[in-house]
Amino acid sequence: MSNRFDIAVVGATGLVGETILNILAERSFPVGRLIPLASARSAGRTVEFRGEAFPVQVLDDFDFKDISFALFSAGAGVSAAHAPRAVGAGAWVIDNTSQFRYDPAIPLVVPEVNGHALDCPRGIVANPNCSTIQMVMALAPIHRAVGIERINVATYQAVSGAGRSAVERLRRDTEARLAGKVPAAEAAGPSIAFDVVPQIDVFLDNGYTKEEMKMVWETRKILEDDGIMVNPTAVRVPVFHGHSEAIHIETRTKVTVPEVQKLLNSTPGVQVFDKRAPGGYPTAVSQGAHRDSVFVGRIREDISHPRGINLWVVADNVRKGAALNSVQIAETLANT
Amino acid sequence: MSNRFDIAVVGATGLVGETILNILAERSFPVGRLIPLASARSAGRTVEFRGEAFPVQVLDDFDFKDISFALFSAGAGVSAAHAPRAVGAGAWVIDNTSQFRYDPAIPLVVPEVNGHALDCPRGIVANPNCSTIQMVMALAPIHRAVGIERINVATYQAVSGAGRSAVERLRRDTEARLAGKVPAAEAAGPSIAFDVVPQIDVFLDNGYTKEEMKMVWETRKILEDDGIMVNPTAVRVPVFHGHSEAIHIETRTKVTVPEVQKLLNSTPGVQVFDKRAPGGYPTAVSQGAHRDSVFVGRIREDISHPRGINLWVVADNVRKGAALNSVQIAETLANT
Repeated sequence: MSNRFDIAVVGATGLVGETILNILAERSFPVGRLIPLASARSAGRTVEFRGEAFPVQVLDDFDFKDISFALFSAGAGVSAAHAPRAVGAGAWVIDNTSQFRYDPAIPLVVPEVNGHALDCPRGIVANPNCSTIQMVMALAPIHRAVGIERINVATYQAVSGAGRSAVERLRRDTEARLAGKVPAAEAAGPSIAFDVVPQIDVFLDNGYTKEEMKMVWETRKILEDDGIMVNPTAVRVPVFHGHSEAIHIETRTKVTVPEVQKLLNSTPGVQVFDKRAPGGYPTAVSQGAHRDSVFVGRIREDISHPRGINLWVVADNVRKGAALNSVQIAETLANT
Repeated sequence: MSNRFDIAVVGATGLVGETILNILAERSFPVGRLIPLASARSAGRTVEFRGEAFPVQVLDDFDFKDISFALFSAGAGVSAAHAPRAVGAGAWVIDNTSQFRYDPAIPLVVPEVNGHALDCPRGIVANPNCSTIQMVMALAPIHRAVGIERINVATYQAVSGAGRSAVERLRRDTEARLAGKVPAAEAAGPSIAFDVVPQIDVFLDNGYTKEEMKMVWETRKILEDDGIMVNPTAVRVPVFHGHSEAIHIETRTKVTVPEVQKLLNSTPGVQVFDKRAPGGYPTAVSQGAHRDSVFVGRIREDISHPRGINLWVVADNVRKGAALNSVQIAETLANT
């Protein structure tokens, strides 16, 4: 491997793909060739990287020859069809979709939490779901210290998690409602302008949505503990960038608020912001958007349980929840 | 008592007061004299009732003589100063503030849940907090049937809970952010346009906010069971009307989803709307605003607990959460 790495970004014109390009530049990742890839629909478009325009190439026609890292974020179907091809050509695939996450042979990685899982043969590495990443970032140090038995979590998820079209729709529907109009119905589901919607992804047979079950399955896999019980309600809110989560945990042995603060204060990638005063907690707009850290506030002992702790966790779902985490995986692999 | 009742509405120019007037008219409450009251600041204003304009009278100058029902929603301080005076003049006081809620001698009433508590000497009756009312409406039948041990709840509360100025501020701040501007800072706290804010009311010593502790104290008092453990996180969201709540309960004995649906389907004031399909659940805009029922969806067995049930509960916080509940209390008292 050279000191520079040839990189393919699949879904380069999407919100996550564009953010991956920005983060590769910001973090001075040693990029050799950069190949932005998308479907034939995006042919003729360019994307910007370090101030230069790069023509978008058609994924179907690209052979992944000499590519070190292929970062996929173009949907599960695209990953299913093309990731094996990229691996066959010798690339590491870092996949942002749910396609391979639940395959026991494929590592699911948040570098600060289970980076050791990257000590594996070259192949596919799965990037977890955005709502899971910020939760395990805050909970991993607590789980390591005292064990977590159960998690009740309710999410407040930004529309950017559903891609650029959802961001544009929130703006358009908000303007419509402010003007006293009813937003146009869309196949993507009901409008969330000035509303909250308790469904993200499809419903499963047990009555949970797939987004909720991702938080169950992925938390156990990343924390390497199938005994952790997780009970999520996942909700979309009219926020552009930044997911928030009300997390109520029950630990195996009792832990106090100062102990939790101390654990989180010494965790790379986590920032505690907890003042018990107006504005003294993270919010999506203040801390969650366009920042790299996972922010934790509202830390308090649960008055309803002898070993309960409550936290409020906020992060940029497109950065740490997707693009940044993918680039961090590539950095870790590049350094080994 | 005559067949018609003289009514005083304290805080008649506010959002709740105005809604009380609308609901008295809608429900054909047998109103004799109607006296809208407010502070001297509102002198000269009129309010509308059944298509007629009524001049607002100054609270300080009013003696409550012959008033049957005085409905207060002008803040705890106003109730503290004037409710005893109204009772002294012979009125029932129905108080929408937190001033008297935690006094063991004063009934705290949701008529469908604990209407029997109105079998009491004439005096003050407290109207519960909006987020508590819709929660106990959904939980009371379950508690009666199988007992509830513990409640984890995260709220998604509309700005109308903070009054008309908060509704106007959300509109103004949303327009500002759509135009790329930063909303003006206000003493009321950070803007929630396109954001969610995990603080409602002030912080208490245990790290919970007062809004959260209201849900603890009031749930126990209304359900008449101090053994119920409640763990709330209360969050304001950029919604105009309608609170939503993700409620995760643990029951004393196991209850199934069909049993919960059956219990709730036969509960007056509650409507189950639960389809496990896009749009097949209540939301603030679709069901929660300008409707009288409490809507329940997303009913499912909690996979993390052997006796857990999850629900999503939506209601109009200004109607069932405040004005409607107050009028229902008056109706119950008028009929006894």
